[in-house]
Amino acid sequence: MPELRTITEAAEFIRTGELTPTALLEQCLSRIDRYEDRVRAWVYIDREGAREQASRLTTELKAGQNRGPLHGIPVGIKDIIDVFDMPTACGSKRWANSYARRDATCVERLRSAGAVIMGKTVTTVFASFDPPPTRNPWNLDRTPGGSSSGSAAAVACGMCLGALASQTGGSITRPASYCGVYSLKPTHGRVSVDGVLPLAPSLDHVGVMANSVRDLAILLQPLAALDNDNGSNPYHYLSEMNQSGSMRFRQLSALPDFPATASPEMTAAFAALRDKTRAAEWAWNELPLPPSFADAPRFQHTIMAVEAATYHGARMARHPDDYPPKVRSLIEHGLATPAPHFVNVIKHHKAMRDEIERAFVDTWRIFATPATAGPAPSAETTGDPVFNSPWSYTGLPTVSLPFAWSADGMPLAVQLIGERYCEDDLLAVANMLEADIAFERRPLPL
Amino acid sequence: MPELRTITEAAEFIRTGELTPTALLEQCLSRIDRYEDRVRAWVYIDREGAREQASRLTTELKAGQNRGPLHGIPVGIKDIIDVFDMPTACGSKRWANSYARRDATCVERLRSAGAVIMGKTVTTVFASFDPPPTRNPWNLDRTPGGSSSGSAAAVACGMCLGALASQTGGSITRPASYCGVYSLKPTHGRVSVDGVLPLAPSLDHVGVMANSVRDLAILLQPLAALDNDNGSNPYHYLSEMNQSGSMRFRQLSALPDFPATASPEMTAAFAALRDKTRAAEWAWNELPLPPSFADAPRFQHTIMAVEAATYHGARMARHPDDYPPKVRSLIEHGLATPAPHFVNVIKHHKAMRDEIERAFVDTWRIFATPATAGPAPSAETTGDPVFNSPWSYTGLPTVSLPFAWSADGMPLAVQLIGERYCEDDLLAVANMLEADIAFERRPLPL
Repeated sequence: MPELRTITEAAEFIRTGELTPTALLEQCLSRIDRYEDRVRAWVYIDREGAREQASRLTTELKAGQNRGPLHGIPVGIKDIIDVFDMPTACGSKRWANSYARRDATCVERLRSAGAVIMGKTVTTVFASFDPPPTRNPWNLDRTPGGSSSGSAAAVACGMCLGALASQTGGSITRPASYCGVYSLKPTHGRVSVDGVLPLAPSLDHVGVMANSVRDLAILLQPLAALDNDNGSNPYHYLSEMNQSGSMRFRQLSALPDFPATASPEMTAAFAALRDKTRAAEWAWNELPLPPSFADAPRFQHTIMAVEAATYHGARMARHPDDYPPKVRSLIEHGLATPAPHFVNVIKHHKAMRDEIERAFVDTWRIFATPATAGPAPSAETTGDPVFNSPWSYTGLPTVSLPFAWSADGMPLAVQLIGERYCEDDLLAVANMLEADIAFERRPLPL
Repeated sequence: MPELRTITEAAEFIRTGELTPTALLEQCLSRIDRYEDRVRAWVYIDREGAREQASRLTTELKAGQNRGPLHGIPVGIKDIIDVFDMPTACGSKRWANSYARRDATCVERLRSAGAVIMGKTVTTVFASFDPPPTRNPWNLDRTPGGSSSGSAAAVACGMCLGALASQTGGSITRPASYCGVYSLKPTHGRVSVDGVLPLAPSLDHVGVMANSVRDLAILLQPLAALDNDNGSNPYHYLSEMNQSGSMRFRQLSALPDFPATASPEMTAAFAALRDKTRAAEWAWNELPLPPSFADAPRFQHTIMAVEAATYHGARMARHPDDYPPKVRSLIEHGLATPAPHFVNVIKHHKAMRDEIERAFVDTWRIFATPATAGPAPSAETTGDPVFNSPWSYTGLPTVSLPFAWSADGMPLAVQLIGERYCEDDLLAVANMLEADIAFERRPLPL
């Protein structure tokens, strides 16, 4: 059996009976044994419970029952998301032993679809900006990004084949990009946040990370079901993707007005990507953004600060020691924001969501930008979310894909942005782009 | 300022400005200082937080704002109910430090109405039958009853003026009766169980304890609001009660077929109560219960066992040490129950709920029975719920009132049962009965 990294491959081996959920889990656990002391991606690992789940799913397969492509797939859950019988610490000392009585809705969906819930992955404290203990597996001096630090690092190491993550600013796209894995931040509202610690509800998204675009589609499928009781879902992301040759166009819009500047290395790499894809028959145009878009990063930060202060203000006053400097500063910013300014920001937020939807009307349906300003910086920071926060602000779905390596051996990623609730188109185009990028997989330098 | 025991008195002193929430809280805290080492009613007391709440509510009053009769009233919350920033341990060792991220809906309602949330009162483990550390304040060798042990004992000692409790079998009425305090178990479904640990959802009720029937009405008022957002409520329990002289009848139905036998002392005391109230112009008749009612206590236990096993089964398998003998035995009973038997029990449950409603049609609207078989037994048990569990089963609202003292100095209580969703009638009649009982208040023998 080869070393498995993608859900797609593993599901096929499980389907044909060449691999059991138990054997796959042991591959993942052995990678944890190998790397975890240096990478520190996990805050809680339930080896015994995971083995029981895998064993039960192995028995089901022997009885002819296969729940689908997540049957027996080991996944990690960001530690702001409740998992039955595990603590939800959220990076807080006070909550280190706060056991969840039930699964968050998103976890329950993955569990029902057959995923093996291995444990909880490191989050920055309360999903904000304070650097976590986790390190980037491509260079242990670098940050894995945040706040979904552990999910990105664990998937990069193959400790799990997929992970739940969350984003309010750039907390899914940024760590996935720094760690060389694929990510999906769905449309705001697409995936339930029930059982997930809020940071700023108007901007909070649950999303996924994995090692291919198809894997992202497999993970999204149960999460996006419309109804908890019967799991109805008008889309089937994977089968739409399989028809992509005839259904979707190789067309991308660059955004010259995007209010963020990439490093010279990323700028050159992104230009090279445009050249390379043009050669593979992709068409690019340039889409002007509305001028008011320039305020999006700053106003996103205001909403995040004010809503974080609303949620955390009373608790921070009671337990100041539980709030490290960056989340403290975020909350203090929120507490100090005058309400009339916030009212104007909310107006801009609503107008921006409408304006950006109109931007799609007469143009191509997928935008592309660098996913980050450059490769992962040092571990003293979690990096800059500015390439991602406008998409948290507008609520549009995004996919990120690794596409190149920096001179110092770190992954670089591109970010695609789709229309509201059109994850099907976005994933199908991203899947075609992944094939044409043909990203060079490298062995971990660990 | 006199020693205050009832919400009604305290609210009047607060309204007139003779008492501040802060002074009232200090009275309660000093009773905790005096009694708690022997009674052990609390699992978590937040003195500092309670003082902050009381101080804020005192400031509000100075600014002319009075939220109503719960403004500044100290209350205790049974420890299966989530309170913001306090652990919800549920009597479990594993959950001793499991902090709740938000208030249960019922707690949020009391808090908004101005109550001061002092802390968490002892529950038996997972609200089942294992004896708790709490002792009966009328005799430290006796049980306070269970599962709402701490709520009953704390209210009896005046450590708080009201408390939230919950009942699946007899967990509100029994401890309130053993401890000589008043209780209300509302209609099943009347009060939200959001944020409350389930035992058996088909039977779980949130209710209240206090030191008078009027106090029960004051506590129910915000809990029974129909809508979380605007607090609309078609009833106003207290003002209905004030009109009771002209609105309600002094009529009670005894239940000779009730499937439980009281002790000779309780039987005699209950007969004496009938004589005494007849002298005060109460009329009594005797209502035959449908024969199928005889199965209610046994079938209630089956539903409780099966639903408890559904909720706790997986957790008990993982953490056997967290399950003491009686809750373990309850869950094992549930796990061993054959599904076809359970289907028949569910049919009976539904039929019984319909039949008992028809029993009200041609008769008087309030039933009365002893609240327990006799006074509180020794602390090695939590007592027998058989006088209460049929009303958990049928979901009808009940009020219990102390009415006499046993020969060995323990309180005895009567239980009134009302029509579904008619807490207004039930409380109004109970209020008249309280006046005519004229229960002899005694000083605590501590």
